[in-house]
Amino acid sequence: MTNYIYELGMKVRDYECDLQGIVNNANYQHYLEHARHEFLLATGVSFAKLHEEGIDVVVSKVILSYKTPLRSQDEFLVKLYLKREGVKFVFYQDIFRKSDNKLCLKGIVEAVCVEHGLLTRGERFDILFADYL
Amino acid sequence: MTNYIYELGMKVRDYECDLQGIVNNANYQHYLEHARHEFLLATGVSFAKLHEEGIDVVVSKVILSYKTPLRSQDEFLVKLYLKREGVKFVFYQDIFRKSDNKLCLKGIVEAVCVEHGLLTRGERFDILFADYL
Amino acid sequence: MTNYIYELGMKVRDYECDLQGIVNNANYQHYLEHARHEFLLATGVSFAKLHEEGIDVVVSKVILSYKTPLRSQDEFLVKLYLKREGVKFVFYQDIFRKSDNKLCLKGIVEAVCVEHGLLTRGERFDILFADYL
Amino acid sequence: MTNYIYELGMKVRDYECDLQGIVNNANYQHYLEHARHEFLLATGVSFAKLHEEGIDVVVSKVILSYKTPLRSQDEFLVKLYLKREGVKFVFYQDIFRKSDNKLCLKGIVEAVCVEHGLLTRGERFDILFADYL
Repeated sequence: MTNYIYELGMKVRDYECDLQGIVNNANYQHYLEHARHEFLLATGVSFAKLHEEGIDVVVSKVILSYKTPLRSQDEFLVKLYLKREGVKFVFYQDIFRKSDNKLCLKGIVEAVCVEHGLLTRGERFDILFADYL
Repeated sequence: MTNYIYELGMKVRDYECDLQGIVNNANYQHYLEHARHEFLLATGVSFAKLHEEGIDVVVSKVILSYKTPLRSQDEFLVKLYLKREGVKFVFYQDIFRKSDNKLCLKGIVEAVCVEHGLLTRGERFDILFADYL
Repeated sequence: MTNYIYELGMKVRDYECDLQGIVNNANYQHYLEHARHEFLLATGVSFAKLHEEGIDVVVSKVILSYKTPLRSQDEFLVKLYLKREGVKFVFYQDIFRKSDNKLCLKGIVEAVCVEHGLLTRGERFDILFADYL
Repeated sequence: MTNYIYELGMKVRDYECDLQGIVNNANYQHYLEHARHEFLLATGVSFAKLHEEGIDVVVSKVILSYKTPLRSQDEFLVKLYLKREGVKFVFYQDIFRKSDNKLCLKGIVEAVCVEHGLLTRGERFDILFADYL
């Protein structure tokens, strides 16, 4: 069993669906991003404030496996856990449809920390994420 | 006959259509914004650079009349002219379908100039827009 | 005092902000649309299901007055009431920032009912909206 | 040297940039999707028309490596080639900044063909793509 350390509930908005009547592929990345930023907030960090301080968490790679499409009115959960892998933080983020717990998307999102334009190891996040790694 | 002073050609992208199979209403505002910013560039001003200098052109009001929906593959023209009205610049922006010149949207976009957080008359733009007002 | 008949709570997602650091103008239309569709659901009608039945509620005009920009992390309420005006339904939709109840946007959205491609008076909605008009 | 078989020129629109001042990660998927659909059109197939006929090309997996962020005003090329791999079509799509030919994104997009809800081998596309595989 996967040990998720954070989850966020959301609901499909109709404008997120495209002419196939299902959520457009790109919008899942929006869902994942929002869940990560809300997770950051839960650890006490604001993505926007970090940016103002010159620190940007930058996504370097994304692997998304689309399993079951979300549709109008679907409620869903974005669940995540993360790992430190060298200089990267890797977020494992899965989306489940709420009505039947069906897996909709498996996502792996690799992020690095850039401070004032330079790649760093992001030690600051080791402390913030200590309880979650 | 309307005397437009700028026009930009674009094409509908499928992800801009929603489950009704037509371009989602909000995306027309994206089209209008992009056309205004390209017009600004044509006068020698970059919206992003302005923002870095502390100058923001801020939309204060938008009136959009939806006439004919755009669909997948449609090519269209965003045409515009503008007027100074007191402290505001008012952009009149109309969208025409290219295949038959049909009017798709009539837009009126009012913008004001904010410098370092304060509302100004945006005199700078009077000079830039001199040929167009 | 305005007598709103429905309200929906939402929160700004970072990807909705543009390079000015504030919610992009077009996204407010997304907020308003989502609130209207949730309101429709509350009256027992699904926008997506209606579309499958050949009935489309089509926005014919939008007037948006931008008062105070929403920013990263802001929570807000979309409040609405509606009126029948001839063939149109007019939604009055205002957005308030939750932290201080500040008015962020005043919106007026006119919609008409199209059944199988033809404009109708949308009598069906008179019944659905009976308690709200 | 990579043998791309199709390329599409595009330009960043300011609303596609987020509060970090760079194009939001999810929007690259929009760029890739639009380039694929334009490629489909070039082979004589419309994504929207296919959907109306009950045929959906569905993305099953996406791998995106972010190399260099695109910014306001950047012009770029989306280049692609594709391969048949079993039941899947795999699109290799790379984005290059036009000014200096810098690689911005490497994308691998796997798609399958669903006809009236059932997974097929999409033989129809073998014919359409014959010149490109």
